[in-house]
Amino acid sequence: MTVKEYSDHENFPFFVDIPTRWMDSDVYGHVNNVEYYSYIDTAINMHLAKKVMLDPNTAPVFGVVAETGCKFFKEIRHPDIIEAGIRVTQIGNSSVTYQVALYRRSDEALAALGHFVHVYVDRETRKPRTIPDAFRKELNQLFT
Amino acid sequence: MTVKEYSDHENFPFFVDIPTRWMDSDVYGHVNNVEYYSYIDTAINMHLAKKVMLDPNTAPVFGVVAETGCKFFKEIRHPDIIEAGIRVTQIGNSSVTYQVALYRRSDEALAALGHFVHVYVDRETRKPRTIPDAFRKELNQLFT
Amino acid sequence: MTVKEYSDHENFPFFVDIPTRWMDSDVYGHVNNVEYYSYIDTAINMHLAKKVMLDPNTAPVFGVVAETGCKFFKEIRHPDIIEAGIRVTQIGNSSVTYQVALYRRSDEALAALGHFVHVYVDRETRKPRTIPDAFRKELNQLFT
Amino acid sequence: MTVKEYSDHENFPFFVDIPTRWMDSDVYGHVNNVEYYSYIDTAINMHLAKKVMLDPNTAPVFGVVAETGCKFFKEIRHPDIIEAGIRVTQIGNSSVTYQVALYRRSDEALAALGHFVHVYVDRETRKPRTIPDAFRKELNQLFT
Repeated sequence: MTVKEYSDHENFPFFVDIPTRWMDSDVYGHVNNVEYYSYIDTAINMHLAKKVMLDPNTAPVFGVVAETGCKFFKEIRHPDIIEAGIRVTQIGNSSVTYQVALYRRSDEALAALGHFVHVYVDRETRKPRTIPDAFRKELNQLFT
Repeated sequence: MTVKEYSDHENFPFFVDIPTRWMDSDVYGHVNNVEYYSYIDTAINMHLAKKVMLDPNTAPVFGVVAETGCKFFKEIRHPDIIEAGIRVTQIGNSSVTYQVALYRRSDEALAALGHFVHVYVDRETRKPRTIPDAFRKELNQLFT
Repeated sequence: MTVKEYSDHENFPFFVDIPTRWMDSDVYGHVNNVEYYSYIDTAINMHLAKKVMLDPNTAPVFGVVAETGCKFFKEIRHPDIIEAGIRVTQIGNSSVTYQVALYRRSDEALAALGHFVHVYVDRETRKPRTIPDAFRKELNQLFT
Repeated sequence: MTVKEYSDHENFPFFVDIPTRWMDSDVYGHVNNVEYYSYIDTAINMHLAKKVMLDPNTAPVFGVVAETGCKFFKEIRHPDIIEAGIRVTQIGNSSVTYQVALYRRSDEALAALGHFVHVYVDRETRKPRTIPDAFRKELNQLFT
């Protein structure tokens, strides 16, 4: 897809609205680059909380982050609402790769485009495990 | 007011909804105490952004924080939406004291009660200044 | 004690050095008020990690925060190193109250003075428990 | 370079020590993935503060972030000290690309490997500008 195509919200089947917070901004008067990852992290985990009912305090198998990345297209200035859209681009035995689009509600602009790789592991050993069926079923719904 | 009376949303004339973020939680599986202050900070500055049109990048006079505090009544667990209500309890020449109530939407419980003191200062010298009229007018609206 | 007396590091028996981070600063070019609490939180938990060997992932009884507060005396500007000193002012059956002094290394100024109340609870029920002896012994060492 | 080669600190000419903070950890008992970027962000800006004397409050030209990424190799558990090493892999007219290695002091393990792209812009217009000579000179020192 081109950046233009990403601007089409329909390519992202799950969205979360994340209002900026005052302290997200840094000295340069815009949201600090690090905070974009908190939006990405929140969007992906919100999907799991809502659709798979993941309880991170007790789940015997859960995703840990193997790799992330983000391209920053537009400054975000507080206050605004970030519309974070996610889709799955790859699913393996134990890992899943997401793409995440961050839009500013104020002008519908694509602010950033990120990716995020979860590897499912055992809570005790932290060794890779097959993605549980309940997760795989919902992740497949995001595969576009 | 008693804690019970604080549960009455009507005592707080301005509200902001703040969804929790995944990383707000700490090792104990609940929102870390520090994050409560980011909710308080966001609520107070959102009022100034919306009602006084404060632009923190250019305003010649703005509020810096002299004192804050918070009593924690209930754990907050992600995901939830925090309803942050504010009111003004004291206005002086250069300082204003707020009270802030944080409710969990999930059960309408009063999760925490904080206070927050802003002292208005000059952007360059950081010396106290009289609260500008545009601010004072809106702060008076919150005085209950 | 007066503010002047707090400037005497000797009144605080345990210190932690905490370098500021770039994103601690906000739009006003100084460390955001919320971050001061992350310094306080880190100092108190570092003492427990070092002296009591608290492992927050497994401890059956641990402290949750009941109340905190902070008075802000000086701006902190990144980069600087915060010297966070702690002492205990009160110990009860299940709760302990700390006072925390934050100094800027750059000029040895007292930047802020906070307090912090821990209530020890059971990991499962989150109900108050007597402070375990291993904790009480070390907390008593901070009682000045 | 291979991952093994990155373990050689000598490949990174500038290092910053960043102690973890209590609240860096999330529900899974390890430092949250987002925080790794705060270490990366801090390391790069600390170099500019120390070597170029960058004052972010007044500099007419400064770097904004165009792209970042990180591969996560090892969990980090609080408390630990992160040794963040940086080097420059590419310098253009207005942009510079860094590689950042994060080591855990506790075991000298390479915890993560990131990259970070700064585009220098004008403070007012936020349009790209040639990297100022004072910056370029120091960035060249990191080019390995």
